[in-house]
Formats: sequence, C-alpha cells, structure tokens
Amino acid sequence: MTISDIAERAGVSIGAVSFALNGRKGVSDETRARVLKVAKEMGWAPSTAARSLAESRTETFGLVLARDPALLGVETFYMQFLAGLEAELSTRGYGLLLQLVPTPEAELETLSRWRSSRRVDGVLLVDLTIDDPRVALLAESDELPAIAIGDPSVAGPLACVWTDDAASMREAVHHLANLGHRRIARVSGLTQLAHTLIRDDVFMSEADALGLDPVLVRTDYTPDSGAEVTRALLTGDEPPTAMVYDNDVMAVAGLTVAMELGISVPEQLSIVAWDDSILCQHTLPRLTALSHDVVASGRHAGRRLFELIDGATPAAHLDYIPRLIKRDSTAAAPSA
Amino acid sequence: MTISDIAERAGVSIGAVSFALNGRKGVSDETRARVLKVAKEMGWAPSTAARSLAESRTETFGLVLARDPALLGVETFYMQFLAGLEAELSTRGYGLLLQLVPTPEAELETLSRWRSSRRVDGVLLVDLTIDDPRVALLAESDELPAIAIGDPSVAGPLACVWTDDAASMREAVHHLANLGHRRIARVSGLTQLAHTLIRDDVFMSEADALGLDPVLVRTDYTPDSGAEVTRALLTGDEPPTAMVYDNDVMAVAGLTVAMELGISVPEQLSIVAWDDSILCQHTLPRLTALSHDVVASGRHAGRRLFELIDGATPAAHLDYIPRLIKRDSTAAAPSA
Repeated sequence: MTISDIAERAGVSIGAVSFALNGRKGVSDETRARVLKVAKEMGWAPSTAARSLAESRTETFGLVLARDPALLGVETFYMQFLAGLEAELSTRGYGLLLQLVPTPEAELETLSRWRSSRRVDGVLLVDLTIDDPRVALLAESDELPAIAIGDPSVAGPLACVWTDDAASMREAVHHLANLGHRRIARVSGLTQLAHTLIRDDVFMSEADALGLDPVLVRTDYTPDSGAEVTRALLTGDEPPTAMVYDNDVMAVAGLTVAMELGISVPEQLSIVAWDDSILCQHTLPRLTALSHDVVASGRHAGRRLFELIDGATPAAHLDYIPRLIKRDSTAAAPSA
Repeated sequence: MTISDIAERAGVSIGAVSFALNGRKGVSDETRARVLKVAKEMGWAPSTAARSLAESRTETFGLVLARDPALLGVETFYMQFLAGLEAELSTRGYGLLLQLVPTPEAELETLSRWRSSRRVDGVLLVDLTIDDPRVALLAESDELPAIAIGDPSVAGPLACVWTDDAASMREAVHHLANLGHRRIARVSGLTQLAHTLIRDDVFMSEADALGLDPVLVRTDYTPDSGAEVTRALLTGDEPPTAMVYDNDVMAVAGLTVAMELGISVPEQLSIVAWDDSILCQHTLPRLTALSHDVVASGRHAGRRLFELIDGATPAAHLDYIPRLIKRDSTAAAPSA
C-alpha cells in the first residue's frame, strides 16, 4: 500500500494525504479528517507512512529560469548561486532539475506540470517580479514546497531567502555623499525584477533626502549596455562624478569607457559595483563593491528548502546585508 | 503490461529489454532472442512497445560536475554551456538533472546509480581526463547513452563533441611568431584535464618547431592565480613578450598586472585569451582571443544526445575550431 492508494480512496491529491498524515497545514480540517479515517481503515501505520513518504520522494529540487540563454552566460551570479545550492543538495544526495524556458508563461506551465506530476520535491524561484504569478500559483496549495529568492514584500505567503538590498544601497549612497559627490548615477538592471525596483527606489529617495542630484538609467545587465550608458552619461551635459553599477561586468565595462575617455578613476570619477566578484579585485584601480556571498546564498536557499520539505512553517529568512567593500575606485569628488 | 514485466519474466534489465526490442546493440544475441521470445509470449506488440518505451523515458538528461563550488562561479564557461544545452533540451521539454559532487569518485558513483535506477535518459560528461574512469564505466553497456565533451582521443567508444584545440593553439603560436615574438608564455589550466594537456603539448611542440623560446606555467583557472603567475613572469629574469592565457578572467587579471607594473599592452607585451567572452571586448586594450561559441556547443551536445537516445550510432562530432579574433592586445614584439 502506498499513499497513492489512500489518496485514491479518499478522493484527494497525494500531496493532501502527505500533509494530512504529517500533521502539516495546507489541507482543510475536513480533508484531514477524511484522510486519517481512510488511512486507519486501510490499516495505515505511522512507520509505514514514513517509509512510503520517503519512497515517494524524488530526491530532486527544481529550478526554472526564464532567461535568454545568450545573456545567462554573461554574469557569474547564477553559476555561483547554483554552485552553492548544489553543494547543499549534495549533502543529502539531492540533484537539481534545471529547466530553461523562453518565457515567464512557459515557466508557469513547467511549475504547474512539476506540481501535478510530483516530479520534484520542491522548487526555488528566482528573478521575482512585482505581483509574481509564480507566487500566486505555488501559494494555492502546499503541494509543491517553494523557496522564493527575493524580498518578503514580493514573496507573498511563500518562504523566502532575501538580502537587504535597501540597507546596502543606503550605505553606498551615504558613502558617496560623504565623499562630496552630488551628481551620482545608478546604472540599473531589468525593470521587471523586484530587486531592481527596490534598489531604484532607495537610490532615488536616499539621494533626494541628502540633497543630491541623482540620475537613473536602465540596462539589460550586459557589459555592452553598461559601456553604452557610461559613455552617454560621461559625454553628456551634466556628467556624474560617481556611478553605481548593478553588477560587476557592467562596472568593469564602465571603468574601461572612463579610461578610453581619459577620465581617471577615482580622481575624476568614482565607481561602485554591485555583486562583488573576483573580477572587481583584478581591475586597476580595484573596484569598490557591494559584496554578497552568492555561493553562501545558494547554500542557504537549499537548506531552507530541506527544512520546508521536512515540515517547517514557511517564513522569511534574511540571508545577508551586502557590505560595501571600499577599494580604490571611490574617492573624494573632484572640486568644481 | 510494461517492459518491466518483460524484464522480470526474462530475467534481464529493463535496459536490455529496451535495446532488444529496438534492435539496438548493447545486448548479446542470446539475451535479445530470449527477450523477443518472452515479449511474444506476453503478446507484446510493436505499437505497445513504442508507447511504453516513450512512457519509460524520464525526459531528463543528467550532468555531474566534480568541481569546487567556489571555483565554479568564477568562469562563465559552464553557465554558457548550460544555457546552450538547456535551450536545446527545452525544444523537447527535457530538463537537466545537475549534480555537483566533491570528488571524481563520487561522480562515478552518481553515474552508476543513475544508470541502474534509469533516473535520466542520457548523460553528458565534461572535464575529460586521460584514461577517464567515467568513459570506462559508461562504455560497459549501452544502458546509459552518453556524450563526452572532449577530444576523441580520450572519449573512447563514447560519442563525443569536440573542439579542435590543437589547430587553434597552432594558430595562436603562429600569430605571435609572425609578430616577431620569441619568448612566449602559456598560462595553462588544470593538469588533470585532457584539453589542458593537448593545448600544452601543441604549444610546446609548435614553439619548438618555430625556434621560439616557450615557457609553460600552471594555474587553477582563477584570476588570482593568473595574476600571480603574470607578476612572477614579468618581474623574472627572462620576461616573455607575449602571453597566452587559458581563459578570459586570467587574461583580464594579467592585463591589470601589466598595467600595475607599467608594462604597456600591446607595445611591450602581447596578450591572447582563450575562450573569448564579452569581457574581452570591454578591456583597454580589447583582448585578442581564441573565440569559441560555448552556448552553441551546449546546444550541439544536447542535439547529439537526442540523436543517441533516438538510436544513432556513437560517433565523434567536431564542434568547432576556435578562431583567433585579433583585437588590440597583440602587436609586433618590442625590438630588443
């Protein structure tokens, strides 16, 4: 006998049986009572239940990425996150089912299919958006445990692992303000991502509060767009004296543009990178950066997902407040 | 009735039944005859067989990486390869089961377990070594179709997708020789990898044949080791006038070290990177590089694995000969 048999007899999903037998929330009291009654009638014993539940596990977590394959290879962020996640999964012999899809709609379909086919024991959501439809889908039931990698404000009722980007951005803006910079630029990322908007918002409000003169420009995270935006700003009417980039490769590309234009860093221009990487330590000058241990984040996310499938209540877990590592690319603003 | 029933009755593995019913090699004539006899007795019809075989598919390919998680995030190579692979897999709704393991032994165990449990429809092998034990394991039977990403000389009887690194290295050495360089250095990668040794070998033999004065140094592919090796060579007794790096991030780190030492590139030092990336186009000067479309390689590997599970005979498929993209970091050797 398996929990599928109980599910069939009780007329509920396998997930509902699993939750009912384990005393976890996610099923109504009525369903729970019916499942327990059927299980008892069928001679279901807790020890059998435990064994069968273990057997029904796929020992696999799932991750769907709706990103352009060509852009995915540009940043080291995902590989670092995957590396940390995999390191945690390997402690329990779990594998990661990774699926790349062309659109957010296809991602929803994949998650929906995984849930109904019980193909994975749990999923991780990345690249959270405002009103993310994946959150709504997975919050419908407890059938597919999920960890959202993103801010509690967009994770809804799902468990989440988040970094306090607002605090980090505040630190970066204050650092530049204290160095006397007034005209500061943020080279921002993709607008559809919640963390982009959170960083945008804090950048603008904090700069306003300090009486600075902020400018915000959008990119697609590629070095090409980082270079293009930098060139436009530095050759424009009111060039900034400090720039905050939303990733490491754009900051490196921006530094190169400054060199080409004969603008010396940090004497004439200060540069801050987000998501510090080894790369930021191998430029001249070395880049001041908001440092976030992405490998550790991946591990953390994996650990929280294990806790979830072991019965933990979904909660928001602060992962990290990215710290500003002051290197050689930020200095006092040039005197006017 | 499923092929498991036939396997049980015939006393052979499910894989053997699959191969026998499909007329594929990998089972003895004796086993094939027994399976066909049992299948006939059980009223097995080809159409049923086809359906059941399709049902027995996991729609998943597997990839095990035995790499240090911390180092995995440094290079963009793997993410690009995964991105291309996933793009191909998604055309047939396949997912990739990715497992990171601490040691080559653990990788062997994982492959062995996947094969016996039929957890994936096929696997990809990366980071091939000389006398790779994974090749021996998977060549034992046709049960788990595999594509080796690497040179035919180390792929044994397995299907492989390979890049002609020897031809590319020859081109790089000739380019530098034609520019008048004599003392040239190769900043090499991990010795246990077959492609490192192939590149090493051609670098040394080609330089010798041209009467050059080559030097070979080892690294672990990190920017740190690339920087360290560059500093040692450039401040040593016989500094090279040209350097060929085994990846992009080491070349970028090497360029920075040259700048710090006041050695101008390309006037005093020429630099060539392997595995061109967007990064190489955003340095000053832009880096001459051996360009290899890694995303396309990932796609190619996925396509060949689909062909294999559809019944193709394993073969060696040339993927690409990395081309030397001449940018601004290579120039005539400084006159002595």
